[in-house]
Amino acid sequence: MNTVTEVISQEQLLKHWQGHRNLTRRVIEAFPEKDFFEFSIGGMRTFSALAAELLAIGAPGMKGIVNREVKPYQENADDLITKAQYLEKWDVATEEINNYWSQLTVEDFSETFNLFGEYEFPVIENIFYFVDNEIHHRGQGYVYLRALGIVPPNFWER
Amino acid sequence: MNTVTEVISQEQLLKHWQGHRNLTRRVIEAFPEKDFFEFSIGGMRTFSALAAELLAIGAPGMKGIVNREVKPYQENADDLITKAQYLEKWDVATEEINNYWSQLTVEDFSETFNLFGEYEFPVIENIFYFVDNEIHHRGQGYVYLRALGIVPPNFWER
Repeated sequence: MNTVTEVISQEQLLKHWQGHRNLTRRVIEAFPEKDFFEFSIGGMRTFSALAAELLAIGAPGMKGIVNREVKPYQENADDLITKAQYLEKWDVATEEINNYWSQLTVEDFSETFNLFGEYEFPVIENIFYFVDNEIHHRGQGYVYLRALGIVPPNFWER
Repeated sequence: MNTVTEVISQEQLLKHWQGHRNLTRRVIEAFPEKDFFEFSIGGMRTFSALAAELLAIGAPGMKGIVNREVKPYQENADDLITKAQYLEKWDVATEEINNYWSQLTVEDFSETFNLFGEYEFPVIENIFYFVDNEIHHRGQGYVYLRALGIVPPNFWER
């Protein structure tokens, strides 16, 4: 008998997140080089600044969770000055996230961790925040692309 | 011994979704009446049109899943002509979602359902889509608000 006891498995959740990360990668790709670094609406951050935030959260957040190492949030994107460099760092982060994920046990998800020394929540909530925050900022990127006359990738293709 | 066998419980996932729905409600509230129905950027839909989509997905989607009833996607917002009416329908949907959710078993989440006769996926994937699609469109609403000179609610407050 195959008894199901969970609404989503650890493996499914990683696939879900990486699917979103793959879509965000294609949104970065869709921006013209100049607009990626310069275009914004209503005083908001550029999409490169939003991507820098996502890079500062994903792999570093997972590293902190796996190693139970509380380090402050820090963006390290000053040296990234081309879209290609962002995409390269994105791909490195993809592998790092997969690697850290494989070191988590299912029990870890319900343990509390003080992410970046600021967010003391169960690990599952921190990880949901990573994904949700990415969807949120990427949704902003969709408006930037539309305002630039560019058709964004389909939201449902991961 | 308390053995953890899931990364997120059914109850936690509902709380997570309703937290997002509560934030979306406050984004609707933040729009000036006229702009809710008229403002948009780059040829995208107005926030009222996006809210109509969210209303057509959440409670009707859950109803379909719980009753295993395949009905086509249909928006019924033509009769909603004020923000107050949207908020009222939003609150009715909140209760409906809670009610349908309580009728789901943990086994249901891994079963396949043909949502709206179009999306044949495991129930958990359909539900993640409900949440993610809402975050995505709400992120667009944040840009609309900023472009209107309005400070949106904090993303992390649910």
